[in-house]
Amino acid sequence: MAHLQSNSYGKQRVRLTKVLRGNAPDGSPLHEVQEYTIQIMLHGDFEAIYTHGDNANCGPTDTMKNTVYAIARQTSFDSPEDFGLALSARFIDRFPQVHAADVQIAMSRWKRIEVHGQAHPFAFVKEHGQRTAAVTRRRTTGPSNLSVAGGVSGLEVFKSSGSAFGGFFRDEFTTLPDTDERILATTVDAVWNYLSTPGLASGEISFNEAWETSLQTITEVFATHDSPSLQATLYLMGEEMLKRSPAISDVSFTMPNQHHILFDLTPFELDNPDEIYYGTDSPFGIITGTVARQ
Amino acid sequence: MAHLQSNSYGKQRVRLTKVLRGNAPDGSPLHEVQEYTIQIMLHGDFEAIYTHGDNANCGPTDTMKNTVYAIARQTSFDSPEDFGLALSARFIDRFPQVHAADVQIAMSRWKRIEVHGQAHPFAFVKEHGQRTAAVTRRRTTGPSNLSVAGGVSGLEVFKSSGSAFGGFFRDEFTTLPDTDERILATTVDAVWNYLSTPGLASGEISFNEAWETSLQTITEVFATHDSPSLQATLYLMGEEMLKRSPAISDVSFTMPNQHHILFDLTPFELDNPDEIYYGTDSPFGIITGTVARQ
Amino acid sequence: MAHLQSNSYGKQRVRLTKVLRGNAPDGSPLHEVQEYTIQIMLHGDFEAIYTHGDNANCGPTDTMKNTVYAIARQTSFDSPEDFGLALSARFIDRFPQVHAADVQIAMSRWKRIEVHGQAHPFAFVKEHGQRTAAVTRRRTTGPSNLSVAGGVSGLEVFKSSGSAFGGFFRDEFTTLPDTDERILATTVDAVWNYLSTPGLASGEISFNEAWETSLQTITEVFATHDSPSLQATLYLMGEEMLKRSPAISDVSFTMPNQHHILFDLTPFELDNPDEIYYGTDSPFGIITGTVARQ
Amino acid sequence: MAHLQSNSYGKQRVRLTKVLRGNAPDGSPLHEVQEYTIQIMLHGDFEAIYTHGDNANCGPTDTMKNTVYAIARQTSFDSPEDFGLALSARFIDRFPQVHAADVQIAMSRWKRIEVHGQAHPFAFVKEHGQRTAAVTRRRTTGPSNLSVAGGVSGLEVFKSSGSAFGGFFRDEFTTLPDTDERILATTVDAVWNYLSTPGLASGEISFNEAWETSLQTITEVFATHDSPSLQATLYLMGEEMLKRSPAISDVSFTMPNQHHILFDLTPFELDNPDEIYYGTDSPFGIITGTVARQ
Repeated sequence: MAHLQSNSYGKQRVRLTKVLRGNAPDGSPLHEVQEYTIQIMLHGDFEAIYTHGDNANCGPTDTMKNTVYAIARQTSFDSPEDFGLALSARFIDRFPQVHAADVQIAMSRWKRIEVHGQAHPFAFVKEHGQRTAAVTRRRTTGPSNLSVAGGVSGLEVFKSSGSAFGGFFRDEFTTLPDTDERILATTVDAVWNYLSTPGLASGEISFNEAWETSLQTITEVFATHDSPSLQATLYLMGEEMLKRSPAISDVSFTMPNQHHILFDLTPFELDNPDEIYYGTDSPFGIITGTVARQ
Repeated sequence: MAHLQSNSYGKQRVRLTKVLRGNAPDGSPLHEVQEYTIQIMLHGDFEAIYTHGDNANCGPTDTMKNTVYAIARQTSFDSPEDFGLALSARFIDRFPQVHAADVQIAMSRWKRIEVHGQAHPFAFVKEHGQRTAAVTRRRTTGPSNLSVAGGVSGLEVFKSSGSAFGGFFRDEFTTLPDTDERILATTVDAVWNYLSTPGLASGEISFNEAWETSLQTITEVFATHDSPSLQATLYLMGEEMLKRSPAISDVSFTMPNQHHILFDLTPFELDNPDEIYYGTDSPFGIITGTVARQ
Repeated sequence: MAHLQSNSYGKQRVRLTKVLRGNAPDGSPLHEVQEYTIQIMLHGDFEAIYTHGDNANCGPTDTMKNTVYAIARQTSFDSPEDFGLALSARFIDRFPQVHAADVQIAMSRWKRIEVHGQAHPFAFVKEHGQRTAAVTRRRTTGPSNLSVAGGVSGLEVFKSSGSAFGGFFRDEFTTLPDTDERILATTVDAVWNYLSTPGLASGEISFNEAWETSLQTITEVFATHDSPSLQATLYLMGEEMLKRSPAISDVSFTMPNQHHILFDLTPFELDNPDEIYYGTDSPFGIITGTVARQ
Repeated sequence: MAHLQSNSYGKQRVRLTKVLRGNAPDGSPLHEVQEYTIQIMLHGDFEAIYTHGDNANCGPTDTMKNTVYAIARQTSFDSPEDFGLALSARFIDRFPQVHAADVQIAMSRWKRIEVHGQAHPFAFVKEHGQRTAAVTRRRTTGPSNLSVAGGVSGLEVFKSSGSAFGGFFRDEFTTLPDTDERILATTVDAVWNYLSTPGLASGEISFNEAWETSLQTITEVFATHDSPSLQATLYLMGEEMLKRSPAISDVSFTMPNQHHILFDLTPFELDNPDEIYYGTDSPFGIITGTVARQ
């Protein structure tokens, strides 16, 4: 009567910190820190685990956790995408029952603390916004057996001008007036896929450079676009990212519209010349879209 | 070079409270409370909004918010599924540019406070775990134009016996020993779809009864199943739900394995006869699966 | 030039689960579960740790964690207050440099799952609202060397009638009208101190019974009080708790006023007879007060 | 039998955004953004509100909200401390029943987006860490009628060297070994009070400069201090702040010890030369202290 239609299992919030204890040219210590929070989801020949209590094909999630730390020790990598490539390969290589391994990584952005104007060799302060990466590796052969994505999440931006919203569809429940000057505030979540090329897995792409370019593009377009809607700003961000980053095939955005509304001061006989706003926590608009290369 | 591959927008965290101010047989007040937090996502002919800054087809998310409250006043409903049916119909009926409306509802579970053993007529205390509902309505005709789902989220359960994990796949990174007695703790998130029948939208199903049956089934199976893995418990929950609820076509679960590990007391010359455990916040296993009617 | 004016250190989120594997009269298993999240803060002769990097008096917070699990094994207790008494005694007894030990405990409320109307012997579902306990033990002698408190946190309650707010102080920034019918919703956080008696530490008080009485009193007063303000409801809760529980000396409440506001439907030519409300996440009122025995 | 021992009420999460729409020397727009989340707590002659349901002295929390926006319009300020001074004065001046007004402000740190190396005139991205301010104003006369504090919260810092922990107090539950090389990671919450001087309220102190100095001092000391314990680092931060900022009387810190532990790779026949760590979410150490001027 019942059957298992789909399934997957894995490990979440595996927290890895790798410290690269290198040296500056003068021989003094110069450290790099890689701090990743990792989620692994496996797909495969797991049906009997669910339907017959047969664990023969069940690699424990505890083993997945151990694998993160062992692979981190055995492998050199300089980006979360590179680590995702190494980690996903392990599961496809050593777990014959696994058909696909999906690795998602959230990276803390550690920036060197400045002391007397000098970047400190091993002390860091966090930067706003998380970098993310996702690698899905499948057992099939051919170009579609590997997907690599970069991303940013939790990037809060705000502009006090250059945003309008008017000429929209109205029905009898519409009370919102047109405005040609509003605050635009959002928290950018973006995920971009890299083009599936033969060299994708072998270091042909500098994921770190691509990430910096994406971040720069997103904030620049947000700042400079004379926005008729958050939707239009989203599209332009995506279009510009594809223009600047030839290695990216498409980018998806999820952006809340974090409303800031003029406070009505007329009961107090005060004017409000686009100056005093209140932010609302709920409800909020939510805008999504995927911009892809033709 | 670029195009808009997919898109959707809507409103999140619209908080609705409807108070039904009825009376008991003796004429004294007897209130019902419906407290829903609602998310609406629309799909449709929105491309020009994104690509040309043309808002003619853009129904503001502010209108979506207003619509929630107006429809709540104009409509009678006694479940979040019913309200989702009414609300989604509005967007399909009045927004010609909309192809599909997706309404997600999280319902607070308010239980009457007991005073001297009597249920109070208008005072409530919250119950653990949220009820959820989701309705997707498409402009197409035919049975597939409507999906209705019920669900539960955040339901924390714990058992101190009747759970084992052994006979699993091992590789050189496996250190976990087999165990025939472990704590099983999880937070159940389940979503079940109702069979797509001609009468789905017209009140043939008592969504409230179906929800109670699902909750009862989930907790009973969790309690009584002699579990070889959380995966096997998941499958049995789904199988039993399909057995007991003929209106349900399939159910999907997401369940973390919230590990409780025996604390090693040997450094203090103390034994630990399956008594003293520590819970870990991270990392944690995560088990998913969909059980469907054949 | 500088000195250390005050200091304290400790461990937070120590998660303890103790399973009491007892038996029912028929010999079948019957388990009790104690799940506590514990915070320990120590005060004492720690100045040189801070000012001279001298750790001789610094008991590591890792030791505090170990102590939780060892004491849990060595001690019998049936309430978080009792465990707090045992744990705090350990730090005063064995750490000569400690002047005061403050133990705070949040307890998960596990309720037996019902299967065919029978309470299950070892499977549980969480109940809404956390129970808390706090014990502070000082090295001094005399009655003031021990404080024991019980509490509840996160208890959400809601009433759709029996609440008014009017006759209040007005100035030129006041726009709120009087109302004689409003929704009253809050999340109760309450902490009550037990009278400092010679037998406080030795089991003369049933903390579990006292907790049940407090919870019952809080919800009953909330339900039945014809409330002119949340402040007045707070006071009556406290007054009634002192009346019903002779072992309690005082109780402190922190309660947000979680506003529910009538949605203005007049733009849509709809009336709103105290039926359709929206909840707001921010801002919110916050009401605090301590009610003490004369 | 019962009496009201203490009480206070107010409003939380009042979200204010003020946009100063100025111009650059060339006449083009140049905006400043002040985004504050404000909590107001009032103390005063409120007993009858609680004990007799008499609201005559109860200024509604809704009025407090309105007051935030009205005062923001009527007043010029360039720091959260300055706004707290203006807002607290209002409650003392116009609410005769108020004895003390406590205003707490959390400020978002908006940094201009760089476009082609130029700071944008009205578009911003958030910076890591919140700035806070607190003003308490009492109706008494004399220097103690006003307290002003600045602060930072949520500032995450990390160092991969220059931290040790050894020579500590041991008992039979201590298993932690001494270490002369560990990761030190924390999230700084600091609050510093300004010296109570006659000119405190009248602009003699540049709170913005003082804040920047404090932030710089905290991160510099964290980076450069060869730390024998987080306690010692805390003290040195405070000592150095008092040295650099003559207007500060004392500073209080709360800092979790966010443990990073070497992962044991020996089961996999791998070494771990201070390279591969796992972070733990719970439990964690917590260190507090107040450093004051002699």
